[in-house]
Amino acid sequence: MKLHAEDLEDLALGSVFLATGGGGDPYVPLLLTREVLKRTGPVELLQPSDIPDDAFLAAIGNVGAPTVSLELLPSDDEALIALEAFEKQMGRTLDAVISFEIGGGNSLIPIMAAASRGIPVVDGDGMGRALPEAQMMTYAIRNIPSTPALACDYAKNVTLFTTKGTDVYERHIRALAMSSGGMITTVEHGMFGKTLRDALIPGTVSFALKLGTFLRENRGQAPALLAPLQALFADSIYGECHLLHTGKVVDKSTRIVGGFDVGNTVIEAFDQAGAPVEIDIKNEYLMARRGDQILASVPDLIIIVDYETSEPINAERLRYGQRVAVFAVGCPAFYRTEAALDVVSPRNFGFDVDYVPLEALPN
Amino acid sequence: MKLHAEDLEDLALGSVFLATGGGGDPYVPLLLTREVLKRTGPVELLQPSDIPDDAFLAAIGNVGAPTVSLELLPSDDEALIALEAFEKQMGRTLDAVISFEIGGGNSLIPIMAAASRGIPVVDGDGMGRALPEAQMMTYAIRNIPSTPALACDYAKNVTLFTTKGTDVYERHIRALAMSSGGMITTVEHGMFGKTLRDALIPGTVSFALKLGTFLRENRGQAPALLAPLQALFADSIYGECHLLHTGKVVDKSTRIVGGFDVGNTVIEAFDQAGAPVEIDIKNEYLMARRGDQILASVPDLIIIVDYETSEPINAERLRYGQRVAVFAVGCPAFYRTEAALDVVSPRNFGFDVDYVPLEALPN
Repeated sequence: MKLHAEDLEDLALGSVFLATGGGGDPYVPLLLTREVLKRTGPVELLQPSDIPDDAFLAAIGNVGAPTVSLELLPSDDEALIALEAFEKQMGRTLDAVISFEIGGGNSLIPIMAAASRGIPVVDGDGMGRALPEAQMMTYAIRNIPSTPALACDYAKNVTLFTTKGTDVYERHIRALAMSSGGMITTVEHGMFGKTLRDALIPGTVSFALKLGTFLRENRGQAPALLAPLQALFADSIYGECHLLHTGKVVDKSTRIVGGFDVGNTVIEAFDQAGAPVEIDIKNEYLMARRGDQILASVPDLIIIVDYETSEPINAERLRYGQRVAVFAVGCPAFYRTEAALDVVSPRNFGFDVDYVPLEALPN
Repeated sequence: MKLHAEDLEDLALGSVFLATGGGGDPYVPLLLTREVLKRTGPVELLQPSDIPDDAFLAAIGNVGAPTVSLELLPSDDEALIALEAFEKQMGRTLDAVISFEIGGGNSLIPIMAAASRGIPVVDGDGMGRALPEAQMMTYAIRNIPSTPALACDYAKNVTLFTTKGTDVYERHIRALAMSSGGMITTVEHGMFGKTLRDALIPGTVSFALKLGTFLRENRGQAPALLAPLQALFADSIYGECHLLHTGKVVDKSTRIVGGFDVGNTVIEAFDQAGAPVEIDIKNEYLMARRGDQILASVPDLIIIVDYETSEPINAERLRYGQRVAVFAVGCPAFYRTEAALDVVSPRNFGFDVDYVPLEALPN
């Protein structure tokens, strides 16, 4: 299967849904990637089962505060500069690249990089959604070393990290992102095919494309889309899909704290019946609550969409007064394992509660 | 000339005087360097005129907030790890190393590195004192590229920077220092002998040793040392030496801001006659004022010493109640040039005044 320039808009749309508010705004990455693909032709979407054992791969994407992605605009060459500098450091060429996370701009950066470099991109990613920190990636959870890793900022300054653990690596790239204006592109987790196949969330690029196509072809009020969305997710690695709430954004506030967008949003029901739903944000939508009742929490996916069109809305574009619907989708099974919940449970984000799967919550 | 383990205590003492409050606490670096020299034997102190044109050199030292140097303790191998990683990156071995700054711990780190690596250390440095930021080094002012530069933190994580300007480099290493606990060791400004000879402040290691020996042999009340210190400095690249004030520390406050120690101290005259002297701090003592009257300012050197022993006191060890004397010493001529004052005048530290040489001020 190949990804063509014409596929990218649907892919971006589906990816923003899976991004759960984060992953960075896809608009400029979409324009850039489309231009690159028009020049290079389509990119091969490599199925995980087709990755040779000894293929050398790495993960690529942007790191930073998503709000910055609206103003600090990438070019079409940071990804390639970072890839080539990474290859030089490793002393070998890459056979393919893979996403950190299937979400927003970060679903497109690897495609742009792959096209520029003339190599395939893997149909899968390291999160099955977007999550804010490097140690939350499947690659890190599977103990694949994150470094040597290469970072390129938007002024093309290049930094190479060699750290002993992904938690330290995360702290260092976050600091670099902040000192570079808020956003950098990194290439990390150099790994062989055999290792990667065991560590990725499979099929998420093609699923995001399918989801985006569905959303484009079925533009309409969110409640009407619940049943077909449930069918779509039931037939995927995600499973559950619930409609948590509909209403109007009456409060939205985030600040950049430690290089992340941190804050929350409050969504009042259209008829103002019952308590409003509050959603906590750290780059991504992390937890949805009505009063004291948790409706859904990380690592399950929480998605805010425009009520009328069902177009997903990233946190950096969420505004007071928007009429929205809130969906929740089950996370891939990988993230319900103990090893994964050690780093992505609500407690890892400062909430004093354990993770309860979406389908076991009253929502 | 060789530097022996027995020289280091005097060298540290003289360096803290020239450090003008900054450069990091020398205590642990002194112990470590002495142990290394006992193992390796003395280190050759290479005179600038003896550096071959084609010798390959680099500057090495610690970067961070000096307060951290009291608690985040270095080991004897970060410097060597950083040197060797730097050599590997550059694809060539170093013929000698040189200090960033002659001051506090940073006058000892290059000696420890040189001894561990079995190469000489240059009798000179890149500041002739200590200053807080990388772009304030003579090497940077002479447009020697600061990168590729190698940083090693105290957990031995290694980061390689390739940036387009020293101002960006400074921002990035500062961010890394902060995200590494407040202090890192860096190797930077890879350069050839011919270039370095034109860019260094010469003779500062041997002068610091001479000054330290003088201070040890002439322990006593500060005012009594003024005349011999004036003679010592008159016969050096520094020239002027003034006694600005004597009194008691009645206030001292610094906070870590952006990876620097930032604050001030107030020193009341023993007889409480006249306004107290206030000294602004950004890692180093930057400006001494009595009321509205500036007594001395960066890039000239401001030194606070113990009143009874004349032992210099770094800013991180300055405390309420200490009885002190404040000296000022003229900076090397290099720092009175326009190119240098472009980056080290009081205005570069946020003071709304031009630099006036020490000897032209009423002090």
